[in-house]
Amino acid sequence: MRDELSRRAMLGLGAAALLSTRGGAQPGDGVGFAVVGLGKLSQGQILPAFRTCRSARLAALVSGHPEKAHRLAAEQKLPESAVYSYERFDRIAADPRIEAVYIVLPNFLHADYTIRALKAGKHVLCEKPMATSVADAERMVAAAKAANRKLMIAYRCQYEPLNLYGMRLMRRGALGRPRLVVTNMGRQSDLADPSDAWRLDMRMSGGGALADMGIYGINGARYLLNEEPVAVRAWAQTARRDPRFRSVEDLIAWEFRFPSGAISTGTTSFDQAGTMAWEVYGTRGKMVADPGCFYGGNRLAVSAGPGDGQPKIAEVDQFAREMDWMGDIVRGRAPMVSPGEEGLQDMRLIRAILESVARGGATVPTDFGYRRAVDPAKAVRA
Amino acid sequence: MRDELSRRAMLGLGAAALLSTRGGAQPGDGVGFAVVGLGKLSQGQILPAFRTCRSARLAALVSGHPEKAHRLAAEQKLPESAVYSYERFDRIAADPRIEAVYIVLPNFLHADYTIRALKAGKHVLCEKPMATSVADAERMVAAAKAANRKLMIAYRCQYEPLNLYGMRLMRRGALGRPRLVVTNMGRQSDLADPSDAWRLDMRMSGGGALADMGIYGINGARYLLNEEPVAVRAWAQTARRDPRFRSVEDLIAWEFRFPSGAISTGTTSFDQAGTMAWEVYGTRGKMVADPGCFYGGNRLAVSAGPGDGQPKIAEVDQFAREMDWMGDIVRGRAPMVSPGEEGLQDMRLIRAILESVARGGATVPTDFGYRRAVDPAKAVRA
Repeated sequence: MRDELSRRAMLGLGAAALLSTRGGAQPGDGVGFAVVGLGKLSQGQILPAFRTCRSARLAALVSGHPEKAHRLAAEQKLPESAVYSYERFDRIAADPRIEAVYIVLPNFLHADYTIRALKAGKHVLCEKPMATSVADAERMVAAAKAANRKLMIAYRCQYEPLNLYGMRLMRRGALGRPRLVVTNMGRQSDLADPSDAWRLDMRMSGGGALADMGIYGINGARYLLNEEPVAVRAWAQTARRDPRFRSVEDLIAWEFRFPSGAISTGTTSFDQAGTMAWEVYGTRGKMVADPGCFYGGNRLAVSAGPGDGQPKIAEVDQFAREMDWMGDIVRGRAPMVSPGEEGLQDMRLIRAILESVARGGATVPTDFGYRRAVDPAKAVRA
Repeated sequence: MRDELSRRAMLGLGAAALLSTRGGAQPGDGVGFAVVGLGKLSQGQILPAFRTCRSARLAALVSGHPEKAHRLAAEQKLPESAVYSYERFDRIAADPRIEAVYIVLPNFLHADYTIRALKAGKHVLCEKPMATSVADAERMVAAAKAANRKLMIAYRCQYEPLNLYGMRLMRRGALGRPRLVVTNMGRQSDLADPSDAWRLDMRMSGGGALADMGIYGINGARYLLNEEPVAVRAWAQTARRDPRFRSVEDLIAWEFRFPSGAISTGTTSFDQAGTMAWEVYGTRGKMVADPGCFYGGNRLAVSAGPGDGQPKIAEVDQFAREMDWMGDIVRGRAPMVSPGEEGLQDMRLIRAILESVARGGATVPTDFGYRRAVDPAKAVRA
């Protein structure tokens, strides 16, 4: 039998690296990025993605492994001076080549490095989840405000054509009134894989599968429905004898209630076949994205009338698109779509889910007053 | 825009009426059935299905509409004497042509007519849900025992090749250890349609969408996992201003916990696009049946190794198969797979879901001590 669909399989699903031909950018005016953390995501996706960016360019690397950093710098044709250690990180303040910093570190390091980058006068693009606690996320939002710098959370799917297509179908009511969003985001985790080991540690990850994969479902339900949940309840199912789940929950099932009357049910697990799928049921139609949030190869099936079937949606390099968007924000050419506040909302929702789990599935209120300022369905070109 | 997928669309999905060529039955030894209730299901599916039965034959019709009954009797080449009114129903006791009775009445009439048929010495095949209350279901089970007659609940999918294929994949561990079953069963209801009007009345239906559609998800999670849930919690979302939902809940979302550690999440609604879908996520694979419980046109997608893809599964006339199974039970050629106790278990689970809804999503224990006697995956030929 073939191995389970693994994170690697998802990574390998060949994001088409299309050269963007959109206008607006001038050659050479790309915003210089320092990439902080040179793990699997940076090496496999982010560094290669710069090749197709038009508003972002790779300017520096920050790593605790000098050998790896210098090797990658050479590959990327960066000068030796563009390599920073974590000890020398704050010196980026004096480096005019660096205008923005992309935080690709394990979750528990996001807050400190984001705040240090902001204090160094840099804009920050930070991977999701933005932190491992609500308090850290609040500090990050406050730091961006204090520094008068941009803080964008890397919600890949808010910039991804298939998800944008789905959002637009929802906005124009193509499925009728939305009733239900069902999300399943999970995979097999591997304690022996360094890029998974920290994800299986509560302190370092802030929530195991929920923080790593489930967050796509939480965020997805919110951007598909374009509203914020008012209550949640959740159950966990975790085999504590499995060494992977000593400190984090494994399978979590949750339900959010939304003011419109819609419900979203979400599940996530680090002990299941790899899946990133969402489904929407409306009064007049449904759509299924399975996979819906892979780096490539996503598929949407719509049953809602004349548009029935599987719409052909061009793929893009999702990381290039995110970095370009951040570059355009810095240059004043694009609105902020997924700011720190958007990430903070998910941190609060993750906390509410874990609180409900701890309280045996009790209903936990989630109306934190957050309202999305910019709808990606309207702001982001497909 | 096309109308929503409706119950009619499901009905129309062309169940292939294949002539059965299985051995065992002798020509002419088919068990004689009286069909009680000549609504849409009987006229559209059940009466035509007798044409392909080998262990069941149509022997009588029971209806409150003499004109319709005599017209259908003529079409089916039944003598005038094979038409019974509800007033004369108990006289079937003296009619040796009738060995079994198929109850296709609105839910609230199931208990009385089942018990009267059993008292008349007939075996009973009863549509699901078997009743509108646990107490009625218990009376039905007791009546079958007292009369020493068979009571089978018409759980179509327990005899349907695609669902059996899925069950068998589960039994041999093809998906690894099961973690999660997700079911969505819903459609648009129409208060103006007589066959829906009673389904939108709590007293007559015993639970609106939950009793009509949701029961497929409840039963499906149980036969896919081959175990019984120990706890449930549920939320409803019902627009009381919608005239369809004066007495029944509309959208219900529930989660069952199973002893193995698996969770099932189910949703049902009478105000959504027509869907009867289930998904299973295991540690090493997943499968999606969408649609999974239509009368025909079901599709299974498996991601679990060499068997990946969409297996070709022959369609059968699902109603003929159920009636043949009942005939074979009566003739001692087949084991009872879905007895009254199986229907009673779902009645208790429906009651538990509605109790959790009434208590704002409180966790309700569901270990009623029921254990399936015969696994359809083992007993029913594919």
